Amino acid sequence: MLESAEIGHTITKAAYAHDEPRLREALLNAQYDLAQSARGPALLVISGVEGGGRGEIANQLTAWMDPRHIRVVAFGPRTPEEEARPPAWRYWRALPAKGKVGIFMNAWYSEMLAARVRGEIDDGELHARMAAIRQHERMLTDEGLVLLKFWIHLSKAAQKKRLRQLDHDPRTSWRVTRDDWTRYRVYSRSHDLWEHVLRETSTGEAPWYVVEGVDERYRNLSVGKILLGTMQRTLAAKRSRVPKHSLTPTAPAVIDNVKLIRDLDLTKRIALNKYEEGVERYQGKLAKLTRNKRFADHSLVLVFEGADAAGKGGAIRRVTAALDARQYVTVPIAAPTDEERAHPYLWRFWRQVPPRGGIVIFDRSWYGRVLVERVEGLCSVTDWMRAYDEINQFEEQLTTAGAVVVKFWLQISPAEQLRRFRERERTSFKRFKITAEDWRNRTKSTDYKSAVGDVVDRTSTEIATWTLVEAEDKNYARVKILRTIVRRLEAALA
Amino acid sequence: MLESAEIGHTITKAAYAHDEPRLREALLNAQYDLAQSARGPALLVISGVEGGGRGEIANQLTAWMDPRHIRVVAFGPRTPEEEARPPAWRYWRALPAKGKVGIFMNAWYSEMLAARVRGEIDDGELHARMAAIRQHERMLTDEGLVLLKFWIHLSKAAQKKRLRQLDHDPRTSWRVTRDDWTRYRVYSRSHDLWEHVLRETSTGEAPWYVVEGVDERYRNLSVGKILLGTMQRTLAAKRSRVPKHSLTPTAPAVIDNVKLIRDLDLTKRIALNKYEEGVERYQGKLAKLTRNKRFADHSLVLVFEGADAAGKGGAIRRVTAALDARQYVTVPIAAPTDEERAHPYLWRFWRQVPPRGGIVIFDRSWYGRVLVERVEGLCSVTDWMRAYDEINQFEEQLTTAGAVVVKFWLQISPAEQLRRFRERERTSFKRFKITAEDWRNRTKSTDYKSAVGDVVDRTSTEIATWTLVEAEDKNYARVKILRTIVRRLEAALA
Repeated sequence: MLESAEIGHTITKAAYAHDEPRLREALLNAQYDLAQSARGPALLVISGVEGGGRGEIANQLTAWMDPRHIRVVAFGPRTPEEEARPPAWRYWRALPAKGKVGIFMNAWYSEMLAARVRGEIDDGELHARMAAIRQHERMLTDEGLVLLKFWIHLSKAAQKKRLRQLDHDPRTSWRVTRDDWTRYRVYSRSHDLWEHVLRETSTGEAPWYVVEGVDERYRNLSVGKILLGTMQRTLAAKRSRVPKHSLTPTAPAVIDNVKLIRDLDLTKRIALNKYEEGVERYQGKLAKLTRNKRFADHSLVLVFEGADAAGKGGAIRRVTAALDARQYVTVPIAAPTDEERAHPYLWRFWRQVPPRGGIVIFDRSWYGRVLVERVEGLCSVTDWMRAYDEINQFEEQLTTAGAVVVKFWLQISPAEQLRRFRERERTSFKRFKITAEDWRNRTKSTDYKSAVGDVVDRTSTEIATWTLVEAEDKNYARVKILRTIVRRLEAALA
Repeated sequence: MLESAEIGHTITKAAYAHDEPRLREALLNAQYDLAQSARGPALLVISGVEGGGRGEIANQLTAWMDPRHIRVVAFGPRTPEEEARPPAWRYWRALPAKGKVGIFMNAWYSEMLAARVRGEIDDGELHARMAAIRQHERMLTDEGLVLLKFWIHLSKAAQKKRLRQLDHDPRTSWRVTRDDWTRYRVYSRSHDLWEHVLRETSTGEAPWYVVEGVDERYRNLSVGKILLGTMQRTLAAKRSRVPKHSLTPTAPAVIDNVKLIRDLDLTKRIALNKYEEGVERYQGKLAKLTRNKRFADHSLVLVFEGADAAGKGGAIRRVTAALDARQYVTVPIAAPTDEERAHPYLWRFWRQVPPRGGIVIFDRSWYGRVLVERVEGLCSVTDWMRAYDEINQFEEQLTTAGAVVVKFWLQISPAEQLRRFRERERTSFKRFKITAEDWRNRTKSTDYKSAVGDVVDRTSTEIATWTLVEAEDKNYARVKILRTIVRRLEAALA
């Protein structure tokens, strides 16, 4: 979930100068409307890595907004008064009233993460606390509170640079403590923990927003825009009497969540001899790995998603060429049948879950709910917002039972897609592959891009990561896919 | 949560003969309407103690209803096919389609409980599984499934009698295995586990229904009526487009949940000399206990609920007479203030949570949400149904932090209440205590009784049990209350 916040998002001075005054005015207006409506409150819980700029965000928001209706509470070590009561007491005390905006710095998440890193709680206790947090947050949102959870993130390199900067500047060096450097040293170990906790506590009603902290302008504008969007939706919901559960903030395009995909280098190509050599090599390894006796304790679940004509089918055939036909099933996913529609959306995928020793290849998958169903409006915002969490739970169940889950997103340029569509129309045996729907989907490409960005942000987890594939050159894509599967299997069987 | 299913509910043959044909016809009609509407499905998960009659219920329901639209699935030990896949797979496979009714015998709960009793999983794993179950069930209900969880219960004595009966009858003795007797022997140990699991997994969208299994007629009628009511609500919700979360089945009056209160022996009295002796004795003990140095690790939270004029105030004064004024606070709860209304309903109570070493006495409490707010329609069904779970979580947080939570329900007869109202009107210094609202509340006494029954069923937990007090004789009530507090404190400080 942190990948797309480690790639250097920036906003130019000019863009900031354009957006900032507008955002500021809109925030002030929304804040007054919220106070008048006595809806909410809106509570921002801000956590993240050291040096990411959490404090600066709080300062910026209070500078932008009316300080009479916003309150920042920074939680530190517990006071004796707090120690004498249940842990949640101090958070209840500081809870903002309806119509207000509250900012909690280092609240329940920071406390839990710090305790785990220091080894004060074990994994069992960590899970108990996360379950309690889920219940607590659900109760708050059921009561009408709008919860925005921000994880302000820096890559390891960016954190080092940032701490050095602060350290060298005499005006800020007092802010960098020995503790900060100690925490920097355990960055890599902490990274898995952050991923894990964010995945387990990102729910439909209280999702995490991961914001990269490296560029101050990007960081502050992103948080401000997400807050604004949420306040506006909260106010709109009041008027139309939408049930509480739809107050869910939608995943934002404002944080430029497509950068990861946009930045893919689609010029990557592979020479024919290298391609043939690569395919042969990795098919050989794959064949061996799936016949390895240790594979009997595992299973392999491959997910292929991508734009139309991105080359999923061809890539899948290069994989299956290495497999024993009795061992694998390819499952093409189209619109659900009547029987499938009569069950929860995950049901059709659960039916296909392979036994240990088995392989299932999904040509499109359960991500349909957060891709086509979302973009085409086939399900409500509430439904697809909760789906990220449900999908993560599903994949966790798969991996816990020994499955290796490898997910591919195949990306091509619009020009290449058009070329392939035209080619298919000319080639008679490929004509069945191109429909009016394919042409129509092209017109919604911005919506799809944003949906794909959210998929990667919210479901690329430490247990089932996404692999983004530059698929402009089919051959390059096929080798990358085979190699990725082989490496993931090698790691699992090691 | 099991108390009111250990008191011998029965239904006469005549009452059964009257109700059964009507229920049967209504169930059949509801079943056809459900199939037509393609809503639901309705899934009954039936667990409970051995010999409680779970199988008979499934048989009775399929006999009453159209077997084409109802399917019973009994889960046993896992097959190799099931073992090779994630644990949830077999439940997904058997999931009924929309419009259908499914009955799962011994599904995820029985499996988890058996594993815990056999010591295969520890408390940490138990909690992880319960958290996973909550998430799984929430996803199912979010997807439109209506989940009815039945715990078919027997007291220890009733179970023994039942197993003996089955054993002695040559037609049924084959059904009683050595395993059943083994499980009977660990009844007392299992009881705490059942209470714990039922409390942790009873949610607003999927609450448990505990049905006493001792009388076949009562048992089958109760389950049938709860199922009927839920199906009818599901169908009604379709027409009025109520959001999914209100499909929540409401707590049923059909299982006669007021028996526990109705059966209280209000003729209990105490002689004046015994009263004076008792008060003096327990006040003395209470004074000592609250000054005991081990009390510094605990706190005391007393909750007084009861009908108007039931004697809460007088009882509280007999408690506080034993306490150091610096150590306790009495909190009278009336309608919430504006500030309180601007926060989640539990906020006003969290503010009053005592530190370790402290005592808070609530004269009425957070149970207002599921008593007055429910009966007077001040909050939605969804809101008060989720409140039982939220209240249990709250009380768990209190007890985990060392609090001893003692909850009293004071019961008087309507005649005695009337007598006290009249007396208050005559006594000038008590006149402020009687208002028009008190007179009005008397007219809603049936609704209140049912609400109180649900409160006891759903929140009398192993960590914070309710004490029902026969308060017709004030003196009797006061001694019982003092004695209960003393015993609970003695147990906590032991």
